[in-house]
Amino acid sequence: MYFEDYSKFLTAYDTFNDADFVIFGIPFDATTSYKPGARFGPDEVRNASWGLETFSPILKKDLIDVKICDKYNLLMEGNQSEIINRAYSASKDILEAKKIPVMIGGEHSVTYPVVKAVKSVYDDFAVIHFDAHCDLREEYMGNEQSHASVIRRTYDLTKDIFQFGIRSGDQDEWEFGWENTNISMEMPTKDDIKKIKELEKPIYVTIDIDVLDPAFVPGTGTPEPCGFTPKELINSLYLLEEIKEKIVGFDVVEVSPHYDIGKITSVTAAKIIRELILTISK
Amino acid sequence: MYFEDYSKFLTAYDTFNDADFVIFGIPFDATTSYKPGARFGPDEVRNASWGLETFSPILKKDLIDVKICDKYNLLMEGNQSEIINRAYSASKDILEAKKIPVMIGGEHSVTYPVVKAVKSVYDDFAVIHFDAHCDLREEYMGNEQSHASVIRRTYDLTKDIFQFGIRSGDQDEWEFGWENTNISMEMPTKDDIKKIKELEKPIYVTIDIDVLDPAFVPGTGTPEPCGFTPKELINSLYLLEEIKEKIVGFDVVEVSPHYDIGKITSVTAAKIIRELILTISK
Amino acid sequence: MYFEDYSKFLTAYDTFNDADFVIFGIPFDATTSYKPGARFGPDEVRNASWGLETFSPILKKDLIDVKICDKYNLLMEGNQSEIINRAYSASKDILEAKKIPVMIGGEHSVTYPVVKAVKSVYDDFAVIHFDAHCDLREEYMGNEQSHASVIRRTYDLTKDIFQFGIRSGDQDEWEFGWENTNISMEMPTKDDIKKIKELEKPIYVTIDIDVLDPAFVPGTGTPEPCGFTPKELINSLYLLEEIKEKIVGFDVVEVSPHYDIGKITSVTAAKIIRELILTISK
Amino acid sequence: MYFEDYSKFLTAYDTFNDADFVIFGIPFDATTSYKPGARFGPDEVRNASWGLETFSPILKKDLIDVKICDKYNLLMEGNQSEIINRAYSASKDILEAKKIPVMIGGEHSVTYPVVKAVKSVYDDFAVIHFDAHCDLREEYMGNEQSHASVIRRTYDLTKDIFQFGIRSGDQDEWEFGWENTNISMEMPTKDDIKKIKELEKPIYVTIDIDVLDPAFVPGTGTPEPCGFTPKELINSLYLLEEIKEKIVGFDVVEVSPHYDIGKITSVTAAKIIRELILTISK
Amino acid sequence: MYFEDYSKFLTAYDTFNDADFVIFGIPFDATTSYKPGARFGPDEVRNASWGLETFSPILKKDLIDVKICDKYNLLMEGNQSEIINRAYSASKDILEAKKIPVMIGGEHSVTYPVVKAVKSVYDDFAVIHFDAHCDLREEYMGNEQSHASVIRRTYDLTKDIFQFGIRSGDQDEWEFGWENTNISMEMPTKDDIKKIKELEKPIYVTIDIDVLDPAFVPGTGTPEPCGFTPKELINSLYLLEEIKEKIVGFDVVEVSPHYDIGKITSVTAAKIIRELILTISK
Amino acid sequence: MYFEDYSKFLTAYDTFNDADFVIFGIPFDATTSYKPGARFGPDEVRNASWGLETFSPILKKDLIDVKICDKYNLLMEGNQSEIINRAYSASKDILEAKKIPVMIGGEHSVTYPVVKAVKSVYDDFAVIHFDAHCDLREEYMGNEQSHASVIRRTYDLTKDIFQFGIRSGDQDEWEFGWENTNISMEMPTKDDIKKIKELEKPIYVTIDIDVLDPAFVPGTGTPEPCGFTPKELINSLYLLEEIKEKIVGFDVVEVSPHYDIGKITSVTAAKIIRELILTISK
Repeated sequence: MYFEDYSKFLTAYDTFNDADFVIFGIPFDATTSYKPGARFGPDEVRNASWGLETFSPILKKDLIDVKICDKYNLLMEGNQSEIINRAYSASKDILEAKKIPVMIGGEHSVTYPVVKAVKSVYDDFAVIHFDAHCDLREEYMGNEQSHASVIRRTYDLTKDIFQFGIRSGDQDEWEFGWENTNISMEMPTKDDIKKIKELEKPIYVTIDIDVLDPAFVPGTGTPEPCGFTPKELINSLYLLEEIKEKIVGFDVVEVSPHYDIGKITSVTAAKIIRELILTISK
Repeated sequence: MYFEDYSKFLTAYDTFNDADFVIFGIPFDATTSYKPGARFGPDEVRNASWGLETFSPILKKDLIDVKICDKYNLLMEGNQSEIINRAYSASKDILEAKKIPVMIGGEHSVTYPVVKAVKSVYDDFAVIHFDAHCDLREEYMGNEQSHASVIRRTYDLTKDIFQFGIRSGDQDEWEFGWENTNISMEMPTKDDIKKIKELEKPIYVTIDIDVLDPAFVPGTGTPEPCGFTPKELINSLYLLEEIKEKIVGFDVVEVSPHYDIGKITSVTAAKIIRELILTISK
Repeated sequence: MYFEDYSKFLTAYDTFNDADFVIFGIPFDATTSYKPGARFGPDEVRNASWGLETFSPILKKDLIDVKICDKYNLLMEGNQSEIINRAYSASKDILEAKKIPVMIGGEHSVTYPVVKAVKSVYDDFAVIHFDAHCDLREEYMGNEQSHASVIRRTYDLTKDIFQFGIRSGDQDEWEFGWENTNISMEMPTKDDIKKIKELEKPIYVTIDIDVLDPAFVPGTGTPEPCGFTPKELINSLYLLEEIKEKIVGFDVVEVSPHYDIGKITSVTAAKIIRELILTISK
Repeated sequence: MYFEDYSKFLTAYDTFNDADFVIFGIPFDATTSYKPGARFGPDEVRNASWGLETFSPILKKDLIDVKICDKYNLLMEGNQSEIINRAYSASKDILEAKKIPVMIGGEHSVTYPVVKAVKSVYDDFAVIHFDAHCDLREEYMGNEQSHASVIRRTYDLTKDIFQFGIRSGDQDEWEFGWENTNISMEMPTKDDIKKIKELEKPIYVTIDIDVLDPAFVPGTGTPEPCGFTPKELINSLYLLEEIKEKIVGFDVVEVSPHYDIGKITSVTAAKIIRELILTISK
Repeated sequence: MYFEDYSKFLTAYDTFNDADFVIFGIPFDATTSYKPGARFGPDEVRNASWGLETFSPILKKDLIDVKICDKYNLLMEGNQSEIINRAYSASKDILEAKKIPVMIGGEHSVTYPVVKAVKSVYDDFAVIHFDAHCDLREEYMGNEQSHASVIRRTYDLTKDIFQFGIRSGDQDEWEFGWENTNISMEMPTKDDIKKIKELEKPIYVTIDIDVLDPAFVPGTGTPEPCGFTPKELINSLYLLEEIKEKIVGFDVVEVSPHYDIGKITSVTAAKIIRELILTISK
Repeated sequence: MYFEDYSKFLTAYDTFNDADFVIFGIPFDATTSYKPGARFGPDEVRNASWGLETFSPILKKDLIDVKICDKYNLLMEGNQSEIINRAYSASKDILEAKKIPVMIGGEHSVTYPVVKAVKSVYDDFAVIHFDAHCDLREEYMGNEQSHASVIRRTYDLTKDIFQFGIRSGDQDEWEFGWENTNISMEMPTKDDIKKIKELEKPIYVTIDIDVLDPAFVPGTGTPEPCGFTPKELINSLYLLEEIKEKIVGFDVVEVSPHYDIGKITSVTAAKIIRELILTISK
């Protein structure tokens, strides 16, 4: 009729029951150490998605052919542990309904309840992790649930962790990574993906937007120079086509709009989500 | 449940049928001469409204006690005249349902279809106009439907126009105003309101946010120094309590988020809307 | 010799033992609901202080004649309760040494440990509170130590609370305030100060920078339109000369540099601190 | 003397009659869908040009040796079709005088009147198009003269269209491009230029600044991630040396200063213009 | 014809010989201590002037009826003393031609060569000075020609100095002012103007934009809170109507666009210039 | 204890006597031609350094194992020549104490007094220069000590100059460079380093941050498109490991925070300093 509703992610107007993908945001950033603001990420990414086309000329697929539901954001009431529990329950419901959660952060700590839900539903799983930072601290500033510890906590759930694009961490984190996770300073290669495929496990993908160079994503909490270009990252994501049946969920986190001149970070995050949904979708 | 929806204006989650007030945006700015961007106003004002409380300590009323529906934004497809027609039809439907339209602009030209709908439904009516600019040009840059002509076009519909806070115009506009409209460089007084009350006509209120000084609303298209403070404007709006049964609709236009440091313009527009709804509501 | 150190607040280079005033920051903002960033407030206020002169032409006093020590910021290690305890201990040490703590926030929740230290050292005391918001919530988003609850928590320590400039709160907060605190929507008058003087109690002053209108302090977390000008606030602070012997500490909180165009919020906070130190000092 | 005039493009102070190149701006952006502001592009590009040297160390040529006239901007009076007509007439006059128009946009729709003038003066011609977007829509939002349709409209004038760097469009546009234009997701190769040379036709070059990655040109209306670097684009432009006698005009459009942190977009546009003038000039 | 030139100040397209007022900029800020950028002031003020009407509804006069020439900016070649000499010669030429120089800064130090030219041409004269700062330092950071010394240097030329709006300085400056100049923390009154009129001397007016509160002019080098509103300043300027025949020149300085969100500082400076030209003009 | 001091560069809390590296800033930018603000560089780089880890995963070394003293900034009192003399004396003291000065600018002209001190202490030496600009002007705007002349002045001290990444200059500068310095438009190769090594001379390294592309360092005074990525620059710096015993000092200049969205320029400068200190240190 007269009005139009652009409040959800581009094309994501299917119902929960109809949907194959369920987008939701976790607008949380209480533990960010350097520059806060990631709590505004989910809404900005939704908003920026409308600046994109629905069609991917590389994948030759169109978002309008995919069933997607956008549930807006997780309710933020309560303390950090109540929020984490709610995120866990919500993720579990989505996973149990055999739908793919697409979570938009928020700071990286919000990935933990989602992978915990993956653990609960699928028991065993592997993680593909794109980030500038190791996030392998035993604790950070006295907090075991900090964004800087999220992959260490994930390691408590599964030993099959594959880290890409990492270029920052303290000495302990690097040593932990070199010994225990498959930590790489580069983007994944076809061989890396082959190795992951051979595990034959459900896979969760977590993308900290700061894996990209700050020039491409100025809107992030802890910018680390010498990162990757969006082209390099998205080309890597196309490799996941090989294991697409195994991917049970993914997230894009640490978009922090307050530093995001021209909204280029949000639109990049939205494009990553579009291309990854299209890569995974049938 | 797990999720929450903050995509509408604060508390505006009633259905159209239940609502006494119907909020909608017209995200249009194609004719703006100086600094464009007002098309983003409606969404930013909605977003900023969540930074406010629902309760007004001065009016001692609460938005949660008012029935409000937010229809998001007018569909922007088609050329300027198609959009104007759609805005007219939408406004007419709301007015005919005996509901109060609360339109968020967009540039000031979008007020015209709404007042035309008021004309169509109520036949005779008066206009209260807050603005820095006369908006009385016969045409502007060759366009008769420009934001700079909106009150001149309105004058074609009704001679009962009351302009407040005006401080800029070309010589012809001022002369037209001095002769034909009740043009004032100040905020309205009790006497002004009394005079309007005596007309015993339906009243439409249009507020160009730039009636305020640019220091308070940096996010606007044509900032004009020497304006009013939000306190002065809102205190004036409280005077409308005297004629609240007569007010059939209102708008707040020209919020342009790209220049809006710290979002202070959007939050001011949202507060104006909250206070004016509460002033008018039973 | 060759180098100079501008890392402390203007002139604040005395030792702790020599000082009458002890400046310190609490760079904490984890509970801020709307726009985070207050954690960067203390450093920005220090930095901005160097844009001011040391001399006040109204008070005809000079900061260089006052003994001031700047201890930089509170260590932020640990969870919220550990940080609060550290802030409490630090404040207590300063107060027990008969020095005046000048705390720079940080979000408003950081005021609580300081007033708790005042309670511990002086047993009975009164609070003068400048703010746009009541901050009288029993709890906020499930957190009893939130910035929105800080005056309610303070009310657990003393009933002698005087609130000025308040213009926002939910209905419960206002009703609590109208019954239990001396809540005013205006700046204090001489009569207000006289009434406080008659209590003959130690006084703590807490200033949320958002008591000022967002136009003057765009750099704050929850901008609320219709506020006061810096001139109005500072003129009110001059009234405290009458009770200066009774003032045992003060703070300025909620400066959030990320929205602070031209650093005008930080320089305003620095000027408030300069004028209040000079007002209180012998 | 005492004063200096920096209001024109770097060195562009020749008269129209003396000049080989005629720079002019078309400060128009009424149809931009996403982020307006391109109307300020021409003045900002002029301004930024003064941050560059006049000498190109790669081409070993100097702008001071080229005859250039800068006519400032097209008069913006009248509606869109009057402005388009004026742009057409102005371009035609320049082309008929055997001078090379260098048009600075404005949104991409302003290219249409210039290519129409090329058609009128040279009858047959080819177009080299650098862009992130296909711009091949039959109509966009009900407007056939939209920026998103400009190359489709150009296709009505000539079938010899060569598109480079394209990475966004809807499915219909891509299919139209794959069938009808020489559409490429990459920068031109020597072979591409050879193919164009063999046409032996006058050539017009249109460069939408958003062909570059948003990190390099944040100041543009519809940022599309995964673009090219200025080095890649300018190296491609050097290839045009091969066909320089055939180039009859060019433009750089969609520079939108409001999102242009540090003015890096404007200075990049200015450098493109400098290098392209020097490449083409004798 | 087809093109239009907006590169000069609004309406200032008369020739030097025809003009009664001669606008020129001095884009210099090398001595600014706190936040540089005033060198960009003149161009931004010109640009912003086009956002204003030419007609003043209060003075009921129109800029189009005044003969004004805009010479762009002073050539910046050479060291500080060469630039000062050039500014002096240029000003002298304008004054000797019986035209009124309207200088746009640039930092405040650029006022000195202009008043020196006034001294040279008129021998005796008085100065009206609007500023937040005394600018009475004997030297600043080792520089006697600093912006912070400009009125002290002016005092070497004339003892008839009237300072208004001053609210910052070191103790020595204030003591010098209290003894030697007519220093006021307020805007001028009718009595002040009467006193100046009685001197029967040529008058030069220098306006440092920072006399206004930083909320209204965020784009300035040394923001000092607790300033005046544009309305208060411009109302004061209207008082100069009484002495308009005596005013031989004026300037507006310290507009620094880099901090000028929404360009509100530049447009305010442009409005001050429009109103002061109209006040003085026949 | 309770407080922590983050006012120095990351880990740089050793005393002068203990230190092997001495960091100091020269916050000077008076001669910058285009966009001023470099005077704020040193403090911002210090501040941004805390967003980095102390450990380099590529070099596998940690800053905490290096003895570094941070002396804050050079005293800025006096005119340009006094400041230059002070910078010279300070640098000489550091060099004579056999410590490595790490100077943070400030505009590039501040490099001159440091290399003059190197000349004085070591007599003969070579310079490695990373920059977008030649900086080889005989004089600039009448100033022989301008940032645009700094390498020409350095050439008066030593003929062994190696310039990398240069992409802008006037024709005279390029001709001078092609004849007299080892000027390259690229990053250094192993062969370049070998050639420098064979000189067997003390080496000073000066890095103008604008050698990087403006997308990566928007916060700089004269952005020149088509630059290098931080990865390319830092990989080049690793090559200096080969000559690390010969390096007697280095600087990073032209960081100008006012244009530095998301502080990405400052953090890049800080990372360059960390990696270069770690490369050089034992």
